[in-house]
Amino acid sequence: MLHDRAFPLSELRLFASARSAGKTTETPYGTKTIEAFTVDAVAECDIALLAVSGDFAKEFAPQLAARGVTVIDNSSAFRYDDDKPLVIPEINPDAVGDARIIANPNCTTAILAVALWPLHKAFGLKKVIVSTYQAASGAGAEGMSELEDQARAYLDTGKADNKVFAHPLPFNLIPHIDAFQDNGYTKEEMKVTWESRKIMGIPDLALSCTAVRIPTSRAHAESAVIEFARPVTPDAARALLADAPGVKVVDDPAAKVYPMPLNASGKYDVEVGRIRQNLVFGDHGLELFVCGDQLLKGAALNAVQIAEVVLDRRGESLRRSA
Amino acid sequence: MLHDRAFPLSELRLFASARSAGKTTETPYGTKTIEAFTVDAVAECDIALLAVSGDFAKEFAPQLAARGVTVIDNSSAFRYDDDKPLVIPEINPDAVGDARIIANPNCTTAILAVALWPLHKAFGLKKVIVSTYQAASGAGAEGMSELEDQARAYLDTGKADNKVFAHPLPFNLIPHIDAFQDNGYTKEEMKVTWESRKIMGIPDLALSCTAVRIPTSRAHAESAVIEFARPVTPDAARALLADAPGVKVVDDPAAKVYPMPLNASGKYDVEVGRIRQNLVFGDHGLELFVCGDQLLKGAALNAVQIAEVVLDRRGESLRRSA
Repeated sequence: MLHDRAFPLSELRLFASARSAGKTTETPYGTKTIEAFTVDAVAECDIALLAVSGDFAKEFAPQLAARGVTVIDNSSAFRYDDDKPLVIPEINPDAVGDARIIANPNCTTAILAVALWPLHKAFGLKKVIVSTYQAASGAGAEGMSELEDQARAYLDTGKADNKVFAHPLPFNLIPHIDAFQDNGYTKEEMKVTWESRKIMGIPDLALSCTAVRIPTSRAHAESAVIEFARPVTPDAARALLADAPGVKVVDDPAAKVYPMPLNASGKYDVEVGRIRQNLVFGDHGLELFVCGDQLLKGAALNAVQIAEVVLDRRGESLRRSA
Repeated sequence: MLHDRAFPLSELRLFASARSAGKTTETPYGTKTIEAFTVDAVAECDIALLAVSGDFAKEFAPQLAARGVTVIDNSSAFRYDDDKPLVIPEINPDAVGDARIIANPNCTTAILAVALWPLHKAFGLKKVIVSTYQAASGAGAEGMSELEDQARAYLDTGKADNKVFAHPLPFNLIPHIDAFQDNGYTKEEMKVTWESRKIMGIPDLALSCTAVRIPTSRAHAESAVIEFARPVTPDAARALLADAPGVKVVDDPAAKVYPMPLNASGKYDVEVGRIRQNLVFGDHGLELFVCGDQLLKGAALNAVQIAEVVLDRRGESLRRSA
């Protein structure tokens, strides 16, 4: 992603656990040897992109930040800290400020929010009701492998097994992602509520989500019904979204064109389609369907976009040793 | 289904096109020879269960009814006729009346409505927002075969093809079922609105639906957010649903128990779970997830249940020749 975006890095260094240290991996910047993670070693970098567990991030991100590293963290460890920005560059780049720890949002939130934001600015979000269709990649590379392997097993034997997922996923769905909370929602569902509020700066936004894992590989889809403060039309929404960064209007039903994982996978832009006046909320209501790559806008792309904002805003001052 | 329900039939006769006539098929009532469909032949029966296209039903159901046959039609041909009942026996059995043509509802509607009805009676439905996760079986046996065959092809070659569906379905989803209407909704989505209103007798019910085909075989799932006229609690809803016919509460998240196609397939009851107070509608709102067998409550089971109502209500008079 750094190479695809032509991120102007002087050196790429890769860190992992002691178990992986010493292994080599091919990158667009040449063959790289993986180094063992230590605070001292990573502290030599300007920017650290963390793709680690929340517990690891909680322990080490503050230590790196104290040493002057700008940490962009993909875990949920810091997303709800009032003093840590949670950033989608198309929405709230200014929130980056001079923070040394910046949180990268939940994938489902990022894919939805980038489509909601231009509509919010124009019409004012009032209520948002979301149901998701989430890919196996949300559970990591192991999740993607389990889906493929167990789909094969199911086709051969009529039975599928599970280790990564709570139940067999092929030819099934699982309405359970992350831990259940006291209010009956899962943490994944509440992340969409909490993070959408923080990123868009609407602390009282009424948003509910049902998060469902389905047997797709790496693009999440979401159905959203929205009530706005002001009247809205599908045409006006389509025109706004057509000009919005990070989204692509894919909405020509007569030609069987609408967002689908088949097309959204591997793309930077979140696809938005099935835009129609919602039957429940009438002229203040809109219904739409979004689909975005869980590994790109839902993770790596957004993290690198945050790094671009950091570079853009801090420029020369980033090189602490300068 | 007739045999499973011990329907007290004196004789089962099977009709199809001239192309299939003369073929034999094994049934729980013995080996049956398929007869060519003619009005004269079918008019010898008391009840005709039609599983044919809407066009065929429109042409022949009235002719059969005129000959005294009670027709239970699985197509959408008569569902919106004011003088034809559209029946889910758990909800509106009395609507059967003395009608000679009775419509069997859309599968997605039947699976949802059977869970909504007990809640409506207690709390009053006001707004219902639905997103569906629909199985390949909704497109017939060809749809189920295409999903399996193309899943194999995808796993072997990385590519899937499509004939039955508008796009390849394995490891994908398709937010498009039935034809698009002028208002941007598909006919499948509007069926859920129109049929729910008629069956439950709430002509102004505000209900919207996003209907999505996903790569599952034969059970439809649906996410529903509901605003009620009166305050509601998840516990009260759970207690009501536990006593309601046709539904089974499957709602123990801590034990990873919730509705899933894996378990709902082959079952008569519609599974209801993930019951929680909805964040958007507060103490008047509920959110839940349902899953039911598209071929059973979504089709054959409901049709045979209608036949049971007919038999129960008309008893002796059914035998017109008597």
